[in-house]
Amino acid sequence: MQMSKLYAPTLKEDPREAELASHRLLLRAGMIRRGAVGLYSYLPLAWRSINKIEDIIRDEMEAIDAQEMQVPILTDGDLWHQSGRWNAYGPELMRLNDRYEHEYALGPTHEETFTDLVRNELRSYRQLPVTLYQMQDKFRDERRPRFGLMRGREFIMKDAYSFSATQESLQECYDKQKQAYANVCERVGLRALPVVADSGQIGGDTSVEFMALADAGEAALVYCDDCGFAADTEAATAGVTVADGEPGDMEKISTPGIGTIDDVSSFLHIPASATRKALALVDGDGKPVVCFVPGDHELNDVKAEHAFGEYHLMSDEELKEYGLVKGFIGPVGLPDGIRVFFDESLRPSEWWTIGANEADFHFVHAHPGRDFTIADNAWVDVVTARAGDRCPKCGAPLKEARGIEVSQVFQLGTKYSEAMGATFMDEDGVEKPLIMGCYGIGISRTLQAIVEQHHDEHGIIWPVSVAPYEVEVIPLDVHDELVWPVADKVANELLELGVDVMVDDRKERPGVKFNDADLMGMPFQVVCGKKAVKNGNVELKVRATGERTEVAIEDVARLLAQRVEAERA
Amino acid sequence: MQMSKLYAPTLKEDPREAELASHRLLLRAGMIRRGAVGLYSYLPLAWRSINKIEDIIRDEMEAIDAQEMQVPILTDGDLWHQSGRWNAYGPELMRLNDRYEHEYALGPTHEETFTDLVRNELRSYRQLPVTLYQMQDKFRDERRPRFGLMRGREFIMKDAYSFSATQESLQECYDKQKQAYANVCERVGLRALPVVADSGQIGGDTSVEFMALADAGEAALVYCDDCGFAADTEAATAGVTVADGEPGDMEKISTPGIGTIDDVSSFLHIPASATRKALALVDGDGKPVVCFVPGDHELNDVKAEHAFGEYHLMSDEELKEYGLVKGFIGPVGLPDGIRVFFDESLRPSEWWTIGANEADFHFVHAHPGRDFTIADNAWVDVVTARAGDRCPKCGAPLKEARGIEVSQVFQLGTKYSEAMGATFMDEDGVEKPLIMGCYGIGISRTLQAIVEQHHDEHGIIWPVSVAPYEVEVIPLDVHDELVWPVADKVANELLELGVDVMVDDRKERPGVKFNDADLMGMPFQVVCGKKAVKNGNVELKVRATGERTEVAIEDVARLLAQRVEAERA
Repeated sequence: MQMSKLYAPTLKEDPREAELASHRLLLRAGMIRRGAVGLYSYLPLAWRSINKIEDIIRDEMEAIDAQEMQVPILTDGDLWHQSGRWNAYGPELMRLNDRYEHEYALGPTHEETFTDLVRNELRSYRQLPVTLYQMQDKFRDERRPRFGLMRGREFIMKDAYSFSATQESLQECYDKQKQAYANVCERVGLRALPVVADSGQIGGDTSVEFMALADAGEAALVYCDDCGFAADTEAATAGVTVADGEPGDMEKISTPGIGTIDDVSSFLHIPASATRKALALVDGDGKPVVCFVPGDHELNDVKAEHAFGEYHLMSDEELKEYGLVKGFIGPVGLPDGIRVFFDESLRPSEWWTIGANEADFHFVHAHPGRDFTIADNAWVDVVTARAGDRCPKCGAPLKEARGIEVSQVFQLGTKYSEAMGATFMDEDGVEKPLIMGCYGIGISRTLQAIVEQHHDEHGIIWPVSVAPYEVEVIPLDVHDELVWPVADKVANELLELGVDVMVDDRKERPGVKFNDADLMGMPFQVVCGKKAVKNGNVELKVRATGERTEVAIEDVARLLAQRVEAERA
Repeated sequence: MQMSKLYAPTLKEDPREAELASHRLLLRAGMIRRGAVGLYSYLPLAWRSINKIEDIIRDEMEAIDAQEMQVPILTDGDLWHQSGRWNAYGPELMRLNDRYEHEYALGPTHEETFTDLVRNELRSYRQLPVTLYQMQDKFRDERRPRFGLMRGREFIMKDAYSFSATQESLQECYDKQKQAYANVCERVGLRALPVVADSGQIGGDTSVEFMALADAGEAALVYCDDCGFAADTEAATAGVTVADGEPGDMEKISTPGIGTIDDVSSFLHIPASATRKALALVDGDGKPVVCFVPGDHELNDVKAEHAFGEYHLMSDEELKEYGLVKGFIGPVGLPDGIRVFFDESLRPSEWWTIGANEADFHFVHAHPGRDFTIADNAWVDVVTARAGDRCPKCGAPLKEARGIEVSQVFQLGTKYSEAMGATFMDEDGVEKPLIMGCYGIGISRTLQAIVEQHHDEHGIIWPVSVAPYEVEVIPLDVHDELVWPVADKVANELLELGVDVMVDDRKERPGVKFNDADLMGMPFQVVCGKKAVKNGNVELKVRATGERTEVAIEDVARLLAQRVEAERA
């Protein structure tokens, strides 16, 4: 590709709309453009990368017998009514009527469509399992589209659906997809963690999200380097560890004005994790609740809503109203009528330091079961895990990271097949609902996540496997009668060797060319300058490391082709 | 691909919804399925063909420096308002509002979006020309979706847009696309005609439609085998030829009860083309009109509306009201107040046989200019061309055919760039609107058109270039210890040689396998039967010709690979 012909309008200034580095760089490098809010065009360079990501997905899907096809984007409203999601989905589902006033939705996901497709056609256990997938634009009317391709209203997704006769077969389809997703992440150059999104009733995970690690990620994660455990702090129970107090008889001590965790911790010379934070709140039913959590951990809003409904923390007035003493609340001697809960992580702790429900006093050596009781149903999981907590799988200390959800695998079971009457005849002659799984990869989001992980202050650094072009040849002076023929020759040799190559044949100054090359981020640059060429050489620059070497003109294409081939994945 | 795993549910019965052979066969072969009206899913086999068509298009586009990219399907209503098409488009434009009540349309075509994309970014003549294209689902809310993929509401289209600084450059982009489209048709195996859709003011064509020839096509065409001229009878003026009468003085003859073209023709022993059909109608303004056309040609509704507005043919009452004598209307002695028109094709004719405007009488030897006058503005183009008419380019007799419009190239000029303010700075320092062209290929329609041209009573006959699989290996008994290993070996050898191969590994009777193989239509079948295998052979069947040959097991893969390679296009 000659750059003089390429449609890739670069920007010198940072575009205002972009908050993330990846978003900014994709805009600046002339790879994406915003149409309306949350709606992006993929310009030729980005589109090449999208195609390469899709090819890698295709390859992984083919290896596990998943079959590519395509269903319409317009999905019949009737199907959404059958599954019950027409009403459940809310304003994110984009809806429209046709000229005959029939209802349609723009597919945000296609469980209904695929279930409808196979019902009456997958009729026998002998035809199962089947996994079908597509790569297609999806639609979600985000309340607040942002971060470029990260949270758009139209985005490219690979969605797969498996249909099985047995739970074992579903598990097998699910495991294969999970492995394929891990492979895809690796092959496109994404450092990603498979995060357990929830645990099944029958043990094992039934949903895993692949999180690309990035400081700009919307999800907060903890993970274990030792055993590979990873969890979303918003969703999963991490093994929060707390320090214990000293054994002894419960003793009331004077703590004048010592009403915060930090103060208690300093005053008593104990770690914050050995203190207990008391959270007073009014739950979704309007009832007063006190919940105790480790002093060094925060209440997690999502988990707390799960436990208490639409709660709010008590105001000073409410604390007074319920007879609670701000800063000194503890489980011993709480006023009547207040329900008490304890975070799961406190279970192992035997000796507690707690507020005395009296201004300026605490209890030490309080012992659950002896000094206060904890009902069996009082345990809740409400805090956010954090670095240093113990891995619930292996006990090693967890690390913290932020992540971008790029894909998810999910065991659906019979939710859709039952609702929509998609059954098959089993070996035993009994009609049963198909057992389903669904598996999604955000392709456009993956593209941006790759850039978020692979860039520096100068621009993008594409992994070879998904680079729009693998090599950029840069003749510093296209009019020079020595330089241009060399650039042309090297580019042609590379092409013949099957390398994706672009040539900066523009009549621009070397500085402009170097800047654009670094901004656009092709993995290898072949710089053809007069001096080197005179000596029979060109300069090879590796974008990722900045490493430069002089290579003989006659060797460079072969050398590069080998290197590209090796890194293609 | 093993057929036991393939999702391709075949149908034994002809589906009721299908009128066209291609629609019926794609449904029966398990390649497409209808969701809602006019909305189709492409099952894995059809999807493979779609991908191959797309690859061929991609290849042709790359050769002419057109760059692939993608814009959103959701198009901002504001852009449609700017171009004026929001109101002009009518109910075929599918519209919806987002959660903030902003208007969007599902793109049926993307002139507005691409014009918006490049305005402010294609700023200099030095950046031009640029041709951008995408392959994407398009939407059109057809009043009456029908014929499967032929006229759906969601369909796959390749749409390209060129931006030029000069008319010459547009012409060049246009010519390249036109040639590429001809190449695409040839490579996917479509017999198609480039039909001039309209003529530009500055000579030459400014729009050409590629029509795939098929009896089931919606468009009626005439074409010339000699010079390649082709025209849509609905749209273009074909060189209708008429026979002349004998010279002489105008003479009134008695033609009792002879009031139809056939009767006049038999009675006077002259060809129908030498008679004149008088069409009495009321035009769009409610005024009476009589139009004379060759006796052997039909009034073309589209052309007639163009000439007369929303006309209707006169009822018997209306004929009487205006003093016209049914069956005997002629240009001599017409009642006052009736406007008279003549079809263009009658220009060369000097001696006419016409009604005498009196029951049971005709005139022969009537001579325009002598016996009646024809005003300069009385000539209109209102009849449908047909086989046997002379080619307007070379005079050879035209042939008739029906066609499916599969693609169109169009010189847009500055319509959108002016309306939307997309300008560039020209070499002379003057700001000018970009000069645009647009170029569309109906990809899903092309798929079905291929099937419409390539099938027989047993099923589809895929051209190699777009076949879902190029070879189907058919072991007649998968349990047989001689047969199965041979089938497996041949399939693996073909795979290694880069051939797309599927194996019918199902435990079905040979009859079922043969029928399905013919129905699905892979170009080559390798039949592995016990008897042949015992002799070291397999049977090679060519689907298109039915030709069968025994080939040595060790030769068949290599032989087939060569043949496939040669036919891949």
